[in-house]
Amino acid sequence: MANEKYYTFSNVLGNFAFDSSFDIIEKPKSAKAIDAAAELMALRRVLAHFKQSKYYRQFREKNLQLTKQSLRESVGRDLLAIQTIDSISELDRVINILAKRLREWYELYNPEISRTTVNNEKFVSIIESAERQKESAGADLPGRDVEQMKELALALKRLYESRKSNEDYLKSLMDSMCPNLGAVAGTLIGAKLISYAGSLKHLSELPASTIQILGAEKALFRHMRTGAKPPKYGILYQHQMIQKAKKQGRAARLLADKISIATKVDYFKGQFVGDKLLEEIKRKLQ
Amino acid sequence: MANEKYYTFSNVLGNFAFDSSFDIIEKPKSAKAIDAAAELMALRRVLAHFKQSKYYRQFREKNLQLTKQSLRESVGRDLLAIQTIDSISELDRVINILAKRLREWYELYNPEISRTTVNNEKFVSIIESAERQKESAGADLPGRDVEQMKELALALKRLYESRKSNEDYLKSLMDSMCPNLGAVAGTLIGAKLISYAGSLKHLSELPASTIQILGAEKALFRHMRTGAKPPKYGILYQHQMIQKAKKQGRAARLLADKISIATKVDYFKGQFVGDKLLEEIKRKLQ
Repeated sequence: MANEKYYTFSNVLGNFAFDSSFDIIEKPKSAKAIDAAAELMALRRVLAHFKQSKYYRQFREKNLQLTKQSLRESVGRDLLAIQTIDSISELDRVINILAKRLREWYELYNPEISRTTVNNEKFVSIIESAERQKESAGADLPGRDVEQMKELALALKRLYESRKSNEDYLKSLMDSMCPNLGAVAGTLIGAKLISYAGSLKHLSELPASTIQILGAEKALFRHMRTGAKPPKYGILYQHQMIQKAKKQGRAARLLADKISIATKVDYFKGQFVGDKLLEEIKRKLQ
Repeated sequence: MANEKYYTFSNVLGNFAFDSSFDIIEKPKSAKAIDAAAELMALRRVLAHFKQSKYYRQFREKNLQLTKQSLRESVGRDLLAIQTIDSISELDRVINILAKRLREWYELYNPEISRTTVNNEKFVSIIESAERQKESAGADLPGRDVEQMKELALALKRLYESRKSNEDYLKSLMDSMCPNLGAVAGTLIGAKLISYAGSLKHLSELPASTIQILGAEKALFRHMRTGAKPPKYGILYQHQMIQKAKKQGRAARLLADKISIATKVDYFKGQFVGDKLLEEIKRKLQ
């Protein structure tokens, strides 16, 4: 068999070798292999082997395994960032609902604290450890009643901790995945942009003019339907630079331009230019 | 001065005595006092004393103190029950929002668990302690990514604990304040009825027909506006007896009747008849 030709054939199950009468060689030699696909007739005879039922189960299993693997690999870091920023937004919403309830409830006991403490997080941490203030207009309530209010305050504190933890994690995700976007837009706004676009890839493909009004879809459609003024910005409005700018529309356009560049650099794994992009915006806004 | 007449006058600052020339006697004797209010002329001369500015500050302080006290006393147990049931409703809402987020997030990692576990509380407790299942279609994620999902699961667990604690406390509130309402309507539905009515007093004044459709205001107004069918029940629909009944409208009317009686008995601190009322409903429904 030393000088004889043999055929090799590969599929998801592995590599197979066939002799000149197209029987499978269990232990093929490597030399002088001819690819089966090169000759149609040969291929037909080779494929006939794989109609044996013993291969069907193997094919199915291997295919399932490959599909699962490709699904696993399709989970990009951007999907995790989207889940995290959505979780942060929902925690904010949920914290607001419960803090409002805690204020209303605690006002039965001590209305002064709620009135003098505007910040929700500070209010929650006061309630947790609050001693009854003398001369309060609130009701004289036995310990068990106040305990339940503290119980809600403790649950709220736990939610604040989760939000903090989510935000730290999101920052590390963004730092490794899209440091330029993070530097220019900020962690939270950058992640919201990815969430709106659906993926980092899709965000990198959007024109700057779209990025500028991402999150202002309602106003955009109102503009298209009724001819009302088009929106100047969507979620970019939350950016410090736009908040501070005199001409907010111009600032939003500049910022969207640089975000668009930053995202493209990030998507194609370019170098860190976030600081330079930020500098350019600042210079142009002066 | 032993046999002389003197006048007494009381206001929020205390009791005062005046001699026959209407000067204040600092240490009055108790005998033969004549109430100043009995004689208009005398009253005028007495009241003139309290126009002195030294009393103004005392009046103001005493009045503030009294107002605060009456505010304190006006906080009934029913106000606490209303805050607690509202807190429970909001915790339910909040838990749903976050559990939905956790499912979506965790599906990136392991979609099987979410699909096979319908109950949210069970799902949360699984994630908390979950080991990665082999051959999962989920992504291979490093520890830190999964930690964040567990972080959210832990926050959710804490919310479930608060809800449980709230419910236990509400039960004890209802047991001491309105055991009959609690027995007939159940803790949660009973408290919701008080919350809708605004107070136990107001609920006790409502006719049974109003109690029957409390919480179905939308349907009621639609009925009044458009002539659509009137609602048969509001939040009473959540009651087990109505859920099980063949004629749900009739069951709701019966239940509302007994709830109306139970609430009146509770409000006027009558005896416990909740079990008898429940028995009557059951008998009539058979």
